[in-house]
Amino acid sequence: MMEPKKMVLVVLDGLGDRGNKVFNGRTSLQAAYRPNMNRLASMGICGLMHPVAPGIRCGSDTSHLSLLGYDPTKFYSGRGPFEAMGIGVNVQGGDLAFRANFSTVDDNGIVVDRRAGRISENTAPLAKALSFDMDGYKFIVKEGVEHRGALVVRGPNLSDRITDSDPHDSGRRVRDIEPLEAGAENTAYLLNRYLKRAREILRDHPFNRDRQSRGLLPANALLIRGPGKAPSLPSFQELHGMKGACIAGIPMIRGICAMLGMDLINVPGATGRIDTDYKGKFNALRDNLKRYDFIILNVKAPDAAGHDGDPVSKKEAIERTDEALGAIMDMTDDLVICITGDHATPCTLGDHSGDPLPVLFSCKNENRLERRQFDEVSCRKGPLRITSNDVFPYMLQLANRADKYGA
Amino acid sequence: MMEPKKMVLVVLDGLGDRGNKVFNGRTSLQAAYRPNMNRLASMGICGLMHPVAPGIRCGSDTSHLSLLGYDPTKFYSGRGPFEAMGIGVNVQGGDLAFRANFSTVDDNGIVVDRRAGRISENTAPLAKALSFDMDGYKFIVKEGVEHRGALVVRGPNLSDRITDSDPHDSGRRVRDIEPLEAGAENTAYLLNRYLKRAREILRDHPFNRDRQSRGLLPANALLIRGPGKAPSLPSFQELHGMKGACIAGIPMIRGICAMLGMDLINVPGATGRIDTDYKGKFNALRDNLKRYDFIILNVKAPDAAGHDGDPVSKKEAIERTDEALGAIMDMTDDLVICITGDHATPCTLGDHSGDPLPVLFSCKNENRLERRQFDEVSCRKGPLRITSNDVFPYMLQLANRADKYGA
Repeated sequence: MMEPKKMVLVVLDGLGDRGNKVFNGRTSLQAAYRPNMNRLASMGICGLMHPVAPGIRCGSDTSHLSLLGYDPTKFYSGRGPFEAMGIGVNVQGGDLAFRANFSTVDDNGIVVDRRAGRISENTAPLAKALSFDMDGYKFIVKEGVEHRGALVVRGPNLSDRITDSDPHDSGRRVRDIEPLEAGAENTAYLLNRYLKRAREILRDHPFNRDRQSRGLLPANALLIRGPGKAPSLPSFQELHGMKGACIAGIPMIRGICAMLGMDLINVPGATGRIDTDYKGKFNALRDNLKRYDFIILNVKAPDAAGHDGDPVSKKEAIERTDEALGAIMDMTDDLVICITGDHATPCTLGDHSGDPLPVLFSCKNENRLERRQFDEVSCRKGPLRITSNDVFPYMLQLANRADKYGA
Repeated sequence: MMEPKKMVLVVLDGLGDRGNKVFNGRTSLQAAYRPNMNRLASMGICGLMHPVAPGIRCGSDTSHLSLLGYDPTKFYSGRGPFEAMGIGVNVQGGDLAFRANFSTVDDNGIVVDRRAGRISENTAPLAKALSFDMDGYKFIVKEGVEHRGALVVRGPNLSDRITDSDPHDSGRRVRDIEPLEAGAENTAYLLNRYLKRAREILRDHPFNRDRQSRGLLPANALLIRGPGKAPSLPSFQELHGMKGACIAGIPMIRGICAMLGMDLINVPGATGRIDTDYKGKFNALRDNLKRYDFIILNVKAPDAAGHDGDPVSKKEAIERTDEALGAIMDMTDDLVICITGDHATPCTLGDHSGDPLPVLFSCKNENRLERRQFDEVSCRKGPLRITSNDVFPYMLQLANRADKYGA
């Protein structure tokens, strides 16, 4: 068996697209100047990839788990834990996590505004006040953007088979949390006690006295929804026997990788936005390849452009990524490089779709049989029709790291 | 429903390859003169096939089981039984099988040479001396090449969750076999008793007295490793309702087919090597099609050439196979012929890879829409993207032998 190679997975978030009028029916990727991606496609093998399975409209969490070799049908357990990780809670296996809103509720328990007037101040003081231990459980509240946040509960025998407290509309009564199966009663009781205590704390909090003195709605209740039990995932090192690292601007991808025990490589200018430091990220990739067997690099901007319905911005994000790829183009003999997306975010749709995406695997001595381009249409001529669950195994075998199955 | 047709599966072992400099970036298959394969591809439908799943680096045992309609994720149980079958033991479901070495061990139990000086004589007398019944169990030792062999144990309640006796390095102490789970204690005890008895028998065996008189290391211990419980497989007749036969030079493929209850067709010149009697094998195929519904024919030479890194030899093996295919080219109206490999063995890698392989199904009245060639690149234009688990069902439906799924 030949020497094992290092592996690099570049995820252009929301990469896949449909034809756009502004490019005469072509996609942003087809329209982009992308000499490095085309060269990598010509050096290797390409095709189309379905996130998880054909027709599945993946979120970034499920598709990234899949791309990292964790089949989400086995390892994913609802978005609560991943949302919480996304805003910076160090979620652990067994934790119960919720999405949370700081809300305004009247004395009769009726929701006046689920968003407490879309709070413009940083709610970190409220989150801190609601983070404490009670009845042997640890409660962690973390603030997000505006009225948003997350609640994580840590302790024994928690169940996510419970209802929301959030009635999902203003004018309705805050709901008691109810168990949805036998064994969830204690969790429901615990959370109802905690939420009552949270209202008492919020009512008299200086943050709210200040808001009310300015005529603003007080953030006097925490509404929680979307309970999910954090899965106990085998670490990346345990599952693959490899040392892995992550370069990403957005918290959720960093959270997933941290949960898998991968190292997070910090790049000061990595923002997760169109103005991110593309070259900074790929230079960090290059510099860290000595220390790791595998590095995943996520570029969020194409997805954001897709959500904004802005194909020109998406093209620019792809072009700047292609240019930054130059940092590793002289290392291609020693690497297996995979470039793909986590899902399609067509600009004409403004949301994730279930379309297949182009995928390329570049590897020295792989089929250099013909020149190829890297885009949704050219990759149809490539041999592969795979799912995101196949990407990691396919990289492993190209990198001479796959065990033989059988004799 | 039309008349059922006979089915022929030609497996060019290790067929798939990557571009090679000696052929200006083409593969051995692309470079080969292969008019018959191209004609069969034009008569039918083709595409690409992943052994078991994309990126899986299959051995010949797992992939042949899959090609024969036995999903290895359900039916495969480790290589011990298949290795034993490979050298000619008639392994039965429930047997416990090991790979074994005739070794030299000193009086303190330290391994002097795991290979007993790479024995050049036939070790059949030793194997025979170690084959006997003990404690209600049947012990079968079968000699292989040089110091190699296999041990098969037959009897009730055997477990393969035990450790090896082989310390895997010279200079180390022979290990006691230890149980790895509750319920395996009796198997470990039984084997330790047997191996002690084996050493007593080998110590005074004339074979070893003769070796020592010539200054050679005695083969005075049997080291065993890789325990595997033979699966209880449904026979080919039970699973498919068809009478099947096998034409193959190498023992492992013959062993697998024998274990499935298929008939073995003996061809005197079938060696499993580049010098095999290609025409003899395909003439035997032709002659036996009257007697069987399905025949699998394995040509081992392309795999051997891939392991040797010899693309020219691989091309020759393919060309001689193509020529020998002439024996059945006038029968194509009455047959479904599938040609593919069991896995890729790229000459540039010298080992099995997880690359997809070309596959063709030739069948009268199938899509005769265009001329096609049979190779890794041309088959990308074909419609199929399948796994080896799909091959048998696909042949069945072309042969008018598939049950309708639903109404």
